[in-house]
Amino acid sequence: MLIVMKPDASQSDIERVVQVIERLGFKGHPMPGESRTAIGITGNRGSVDPTHFENLPGVAEAIRVTKPYKLISSDLKPGRSVVKVGTASIGGGSLAMIAGPCAVETAEQVFAAAEAVAASGAKFFRGGAFKPRTSPYAFQGKGEDGLKILAEVRDRFGLNIVTEAMDEHGIDLVEKYGDCIQIGARNMQNFSLLKYAGKASKPVLLKRGLSATLDEFLLAAEYIMAEGNYNVILCERGIRTFADHARNTMDLSIVPAVRRLSHLPIIIDPSHGTGHNYMVEPLALAGTAVGADGLIIEVHPCPEEALCDGAQALTTDQFSKLYSKVRQVHSVIAAQNDTEVLHQSLEQIA
Amino acid sequence: MLIVMKPDASQSDIERVVQVIERLGFKGHPMPGESRTAIGITGNRGSVDPTHFENLPGVAEAIRVTKPYKLISSDLKPGRSVVKVGTASIGGGSLAMIAGPCAVETAEQVFAAAEAVAASGAKFFRGGAFKPRTSPYAFQGKGEDGLKILAEVRDRFGLNIVTEAMDEHGIDLVEKYGDCIQIGARNMQNFSLLKYAGKASKPVLLKRGLSATLDEFLLAAEYIMAEGNYNVILCERGIRTFADHARNTMDLSIVPAVRRLSHLPIIIDPSHGTGHNYMVEPLALAGTAVGADGLIIEVHPCPEEALCDGAQALTTDQFSKLYSKVRQVHSVIAAQNDTEVLHQSLEQIA
Amino acid sequence: MLIVMKPDASQSDIERVVQVIERLGFKGHPMPGESRTAIGITGNRGSVDPTHFENLPGVAEAIRVTKPYKLISSDLKPGRSVVKVGTASIGGGSLAMIAGPCAVETAEQVFAAAEAVAASGAKFFRGGAFKPRTSPYAFQGKGEDGLKILAEVRDRFGLNIVTEAMDEHGIDLVEKYGDCIQIGARNMQNFSLLKYAGKASKPVLLKRGLSATLDEFLLAAEYIMAEGNYNVILCERGIRTFADHARNTMDLSIVPAVRRLSHLPIIIDPSHGTGHNYMVEPLALAGTAVGADGLIIEVHPCPEEALCDGAQALTTDQFSKLYSKVRQVHSVIAAQNDTEVLHQSLEQIA
Amino acid sequence: MLIVMKPDASQSDIERVVQVIERLGFKGHPMPGESRTAIGITGNRGSVDPTHFENLPGVAEAIRVTKPYKLISSDLKPGRSVVKVGTASIGGGSLAMIAGPCAVETAEQVFAAAEAVAASGAKFFRGGAFKPRTSPYAFQGKGEDGLKILAEVRDRFGLNIVTEAMDEHGIDLVEKYGDCIQIGARNMQNFSLLKYAGKASKPVLLKRGLSATLDEFLLAAEYIMAEGNYNVILCERGIRTFADHARNTMDLSIVPAVRRLSHLPIIIDPSHGTGHNYMVEPLALAGTAVGADGLIIEVHPCPEEALCDGAQALTTDQFSKLYSKVRQVHSVIAAQNDTEVLHQSLEQIA
Repeated sequence: MLIVMKPDASQSDIERVVQVIERLGFKGHPMPGESRTAIGITGNRGSVDPTHFENLPGVAEAIRVTKPYKLISSDLKPGRSVVKVGTASIGGGSLAMIAGPCAVETAEQVFAAAEAVAASGAKFFRGGAFKPRTSPYAFQGKGEDGLKILAEVRDRFGLNIVTEAMDEHGIDLVEKYGDCIQIGARNMQNFSLLKYAGKASKPVLLKRGLSATLDEFLLAAEYIMAEGNYNVILCERGIRTFADHARNTMDLSIVPAVRRLSHLPIIIDPSHGTGHNYMVEPLALAGTAVGADGLIIEVHPCPEEALCDGAQALTTDQFSKLYSKVRQVHSVIAAQNDTEVLHQSLEQIA
Repeated sequence: MLIVMKPDASQSDIERVVQVIERLGFKGHPMPGESRTAIGITGNRGSVDPTHFENLPGVAEAIRVTKPYKLISSDLKPGRSVVKVGTASIGGGSLAMIAGPCAVETAEQVFAAAEAVAASGAKFFRGGAFKPRTSPYAFQGKGEDGLKILAEVRDRFGLNIVTEAMDEHGIDLVEKYGDCIQIGARNMQNFSLLKYAGKASKPVLLKRGLSATLDEFLLAAEYIMAEGNYNVILCERGIRTFADHARNTMDLSIVPAVRRLSHLPIIIDPSHGTGHNYMVEPLALAGTAVGADGLIIEVHPCPEEALCDGAQALTTDQFSKLYSKVRQVHSVIAAQNDTEVLHQSLEQIA
Repeated sequence: MLIVMKPDASQSDIERVVQVIERLGFKGHPMPGESRTAIGITGNRGSVDPTHFENLPGVAEAIRVTKPYKLISSDLKPGRSVVKVGTASIGGGSLAMIAGPCAVETAEQVFAAAEAVAASGAKFFRGGAFKPRTSPYAFQGKGEDGLKILAEVRDRFGLNIVTEAMDEHGIDLVEKYGDCIQIGARNMQNFSLLKYAGKASKPVLLKRGLSATLDEFLLAAEYIMAEGNYNVILCERGIRTFADHARNTMDLSIVPAVRRLSHLPIIIDPSHGTGHNYMVEPLALAGTAVGADGLIIEVHPCPEEALCDGAQALTTDQFSKLYSKVRQVHSVIAAQNDTEVLHQSLEQIA
Repeated sequence: MLIVMKPDASQSDIERVVQVIERLGFKGHPMPGESRTAIGITGNRGSVDPTHFENLPGVAEAIRVTKPYKLISSDLKPGRSVVKVGTASIGGGSLAMIAGPCAVETAEQVFAAAEAVAASGAKFFRGGAFKPRTSPYAFQGKGEDGLKILAEVRDRFGLNIVTEAMDEHGIDLVEKYGDCIQIGARNMQNFSLLKYAGKASKPVLLKRGLSATLDEFLLAAEYIMAEGNYNVILCERGIRTFADHARNTMDLSIVPAVRRLSHLPIIIDPSHGTGHNYMVEPLALAGTAVGADGLIIEVHPCPEEALCDGAQALTTDQFSKLYSKVRQVHSVIAAQNDTEVLHQSLEQIA
């Protein structure tokens, strides 16, 4: 159930509704929108009687929800969320650029990459200290030492740190050293981890599972939000299909599909999504044109020496060219969207 | 085997090489490139002795080919082919726009769509007279009567006609009335049909099969070319995967993958590729940004009355907005490519 | 629409109903069942008025059908069809064994395989004279000469010949020389070919397409039957998935799924379904246990010399061991089914 | 690297080798086989010099391993492992039957199911106390209370308990109350959880991920074994494909594929693998015929009241019929294998 508040409802009206929800044994999730606040109810099995709420001060409407998701839904929060990550934000019309090496290997490698990323104007740095590897005998990441290097990147270069956590201890450490907790594709339905991330104070970048449907993807975000962490960024990183010319098949149609149902921002990972250096730029341009809120790109000062996924990493030079190109495409797309919004407003006035 | 001729080889040198190939019982396929001609040999099982050719006048090199394809290959013809379709062409840096209804239903419907397509500046018109339908009881198209309507579209509106053939008789009719023979996804490995299309005088638009790998797709084109019809345009129209938010999953990474191996142009079909009206524009923009040579878009003057695939057809108004947007993105991409080509030339000079 | 006749309806009652159907411009398909005949109507767009039929002599009921298929449906013909192929039959509780080489290469090779197949007690022989090959440069089959060799196999060894046709001319030739027309996976939605096969006098073995859903598979059979050829045998030969340990993924759950909806027999092809010699026997046993009506198995007197698909062909020795094992499993399954039918009858009596 | 010991190597020879391995900074995994012990080395990056081992007493051979897996491999341990689960075992020619409800709901429901399962002669009971659910608002299981009910099942009915854990705390609890830790499909690449399970004292039933390749599946088992827990049972539970007639596509060819590479037992889950009650029996029979070491089947005393996955659960009556049928098929398959082993032995003697 959603409780939609009137535009002029006061903060204490909202708190009152949440108290009533809690007295019924459920959980209330106030989501402030541009013109009004909606309050999602979770924790209920079966339907909740709307008469508990309809006559409370400030309440405009109590709406039954039949879809399996609530908090991710545009019904709860029309428009598009902007998620704060450190000193910058993702969503809301701008194009976020997150770049850096697949794995943190050495301080030198990381600083070389970070210097190039910062110089390009990007605001976010990626790099894995915990690496989910198919084989137990492959390089598993540098752990907390790696996170300390990343924290130094923030201090030196002013970049906001996005880095993966694979378990509860990892989430605690990323909260300590980083700015955004990445949940990888293989953990998209690790529901215990999602719940734990839902209690964290830092935003979560949630990657789509290799064979996750749209519903499963959105409900994984719902797991995080149901625990109270509403700062979720979705990420398409390619799905598993029969096609063998790329490591994964990038499913760009998920961007308009997410947009239709959810207020959450969604970004694109053309590096993991293709697995091939020469495909990263065309797919980054395509992801920008399809309307994504950002890109996450692997950059390595020396790709042929990378301990993991070197085949797909861009050189710092390739990266700066790519970023300049996607900015050009994004400015065209952004201008088109602005014109459209303007026309819609004029139509409403007319 | 490929015979690469010297830049200054004469036409009679080339003919001489083809005669030698034919005397050995094989087939020679001369492919003129920008600076030189290469001649593909097909019809051989096992390898051909290069000494037959190496000392002929005008021959630069005889190269053994280990890849399964020859005629589609950039090894045979570097650069990118431009395919003439009626009075216009596809490939070579421009963005071809092919638009029209899924099926030819009535003259009125077709002319209304054609008027809007012509007014938008597009040069190609699509519309099916033979419809491959999953059920034998669904509308199967108007056949030759439909083709006559399409021929009238060409006369009235100056549009070049792209339309599907499902069997040999259909190819004969499309050759008579249309400008480009479309082979549908379900027939991509109908090898008898491919061979027959290879003997046709009109170019072929070959759609990727629902579960075709890159190799299978290119080899289907090779089937057509091996019979002597070198005018093949590839088309990505979505693949079948587990994902259920779109009718098919558009695999845009096939564009750079084709580009890397083949000189053939490749276009994108976001209408069949997504199956949803609201996804067509974002995927058309993405297909343009990824570097496709064109788009094929369903437009219907009255989508809700369409006899097939109405859910994905754009209104004429939506279409003209879409076309204006993709042109903006294409001009950015084209300018980027021109700059890149210029830089590469300067590097070669320096 | 289905017209269900009374158990005591006469042949002339049935003919009368068909006449009425034809006078309405549609096509009537009488399907005799064990206790009564049902008549399917095809060719109608939209619904047919049941009052045309309800008062005709011998008519029990006129039933509206909302499913996309009619003739394949158990609603039309309860129980399970038995299809006559030459001197033997497929369906109805027995286990048909179709064996032989992938391709007809030489008379010696074919006769050696046929001798072993006949000696094992199998009644059907397979072997391709027309081979659908991914590459235009791969061995394409021996054509009519190959069919003549197969016809000789029938004369010498008394085996019934199942062989593929890829186009209309091929169907004519298979009708002349063979006993059953195979339509391959890549042609499952070659609708023109399906319609042509629907006019043939020989039964059709229809292989499931690489990415065909159950509905698409059944509707492809419906295409053949709608033209009047009711002798269709379905064949599961593996689907295309991400899994890479076998050439295709055998989808055995399609057997109970088909059984639930259709009266048509369905067989299993573990040779193409797996692509590996060592997997053929376990999957043949599994296919038998899941309830298939038969198996189609590649046997080659000398697999390592096979011109196509040698990796999956069994030696004649492996084949005879396999056949003996599947017969043991089949006799257990058949006895279980008999017991079940008996129990159900007793329950009905009680 | 594998160190293969001589048949007459003593226990102290083996310990000596392990000491040398540990002195080099690696981990040694002795795996006793029927006639000899092999010792796997893990923890090394890059190759290990074989001369460290070749001259030690009792060493027959030091073999370089290029495959990505070691401990699961038949190279390390020829033959087939038998895994002890409580008072019974899985693997080695017998057919293990694990049955019970999807989720533990109430003591009454569980005891009713357990009574039927025990009466059928099965030795293992399944039932989830922690349920991985796509939606955060769906029933998540009864947790420790559920585990206590399961522990009572063991006491009352003598059944060994197989139950899922979703996180480290869950593994601790399953170790306390159950006999076998199930890792679900969605956690197959939750590498932190796999490592933790590798330190547990109870055997692990590892379900294949929805889109896991054979290699990924085996390497997930390798993660567990690399931590010292060698008691791993694999489970095929259907993969995600485009096919829509069943909830998942059962990939039975993985059974012979696993058998070829690994000594680990593998069982089949036709309940989750199909999602439909009417498919469970045919696929259980097929799984038995393909050579699986066991089955895991959902049984519910009252399927229409089940809180999760009721559509696929068998009634206790259906289950006892199924078990009787699969036993018949298994006895045929087992006899065939025995004959084969006998023949192979006779050939070796001859």
